[in-house]
Amino acid sequence: MQKYFINQSELLNKRIISDDVNHIKNVTRSKVGDSVIVSDQCNEYLVKLTKIENKFVDFELVNEIQNQNELPVLIDIYQGYPKGDKLDDIVKHGTELGVNAIYATFMKRSIVKLEDKKIANKIERYKKIAKEAAEQSFRKIIPGFDIKYLDEIDFSSYDIKLIAYEENAYNGELVNFKKAISNAKQGSKIAIIIGPEGGIDPKEIDKLEEKGFTCCAFGRRILRTETAPLYALSAISYELELKK
Amino acid sequence: MQKYFINQSELLNKRIISDDVNHIKNVTRSKVGDSVIVSDQCNEYLVKLTKIENKFVDFELVNEIQNQNELPVLIDIYQGYPKGDKLDDIVKHGTELGVNAIYATFMKRSIVKLEDKKIANKIERYKKIAKEAAEQSFRKIIPGFDIKYLDEIDFSSYDIKLIAYEENAYNGELVNFKKAISNAKQGSKIAIIIGPEGGIDPKEIDKLEEKGFTCCAFGRRILRTETAPLYALSAISYELELKK
Repeated sequence: MQKYFINQSELLNKRIISDDVNHIKNVTRSKVGDSVIVSDQCNEYLVKLTKIENKFVDFELVNEIQNQNELPVLIDIYQGYPKGDKLDDIVKHGTELGVNAIYATFMKRSIVKLEDKKIANKIERYKKIAKEAAEQSFRKIIPGFDIKYLDEIDFSSYDIKLIAYEENAYNGELVNFKKAISNAKQGSKIAIIIGPEGGIDPKEIDKLEEKGFTCCAFGRRILRTETAPLYALSAISYELELKK
Repeated sequence: MQKYFINQSELLNKRIISDDVNHIKNVTRSKVGDSVIVSDQCNEYLVKLTKIENKFVDFELVNEIQNQNELPVLIDIYQGYPKGDKLDDIVKHGTELGVNAIYATFMKRSIVKLEDKKIANKIERYKKIAKEAAEQSFRKIIPGFDIKYLDEIDFSSYDIKLIAYEENAYNGELVNFKKAISNAKQGSKIAIIIGPEGGIDPKEIDKLEEKGFTCCAFGRRILRTETAPLYALSAISYELELKK
């Protein structure tokens, strides 16, 4: 069943007025009487469509849904700003895999440069990708997205702070990630930093270690920058969400 | 350092004659005296380049390398043939994450149709992607790739047989995957079947269950067909490769 994130006033008025009207009318070609799920990221309902117009879609509530699809921890990925369209896939698949927020982060070795005036458009674009992926994967929330500069980030609120560092994979270090994750508690805030294509500069590593970060390897192989966040999220789901 | 898979006769003759000559000469622009790693998927060596010509590159052995980058189990992914260029990413990232072989598999709900005469070209193309990803991620072997039809596959040699089934995620089943993987032994052969975009047909599920397959969920969220194999491989690396 299709899910739509709507805002609180749409929920109160039982009328969808966003871009989703077009999706309902022209993409899924829903009819009056069809059921969809709507959510304001707090409450979630099965609803029945009662009126479909060009500018709005009305619905009536059928019943509330308990959405328990969120990971038991909050994982924020600080992703070294990658080249090409890799960020599309990271936001899309990271959302499916339960990320709390993705911060595309400029680091010393980032190759991509963005003009300031383009940043707001980029942020809107990735927020839209996150919304669509969250609807498709039945998330309870839409993950956050923002663009940041590594030097300017305050990491003090995190309980667990990890850096995916390829030197650890080269050296066969296999303990740090699992030790940290298996000790996470319900509601722990976890920051994971992943370098851009050229990796993280050793000086950046030093500064982050001073801030309480631990370097770790994601298995024995060298992962691409766009694969590393998916490894982290999958492994954390496996450790904390699945049971034997 | 750059790694190249070469064949046994190239290793014996200490002369590279494949497409990699072009890579060495024109992509990495290596010079005589530079070091690279060569491997015939059995033995792996640090070598020094001694002659770089248009048609061949000669090298001398410096020392043998013990490559321990392979997962302790053999994971074969039977991936429902997906649309678009998703198979590129699955082969690329699956290789990085340690897959033993990927079989793009036609199932009832596969939308893609391939003319027979195109199949050989497709296989060559994905084998090349696997080779490059294996070099980049320092795999010991190049994962296998082939195109198959679900009905015709003999799964009898596998120790663990799993189906990624979205109904299990909808129903909140969280036990089957972890139970199976945490019981895997060194060298276990694991088959994981992942449906195409439209999922696996219930009749196919029935037949596979008769063959000893178990349906399982990869966490609580609904994953896209191209995300599911990456979850499985990451989680298995986390369970079997990392230590606390």
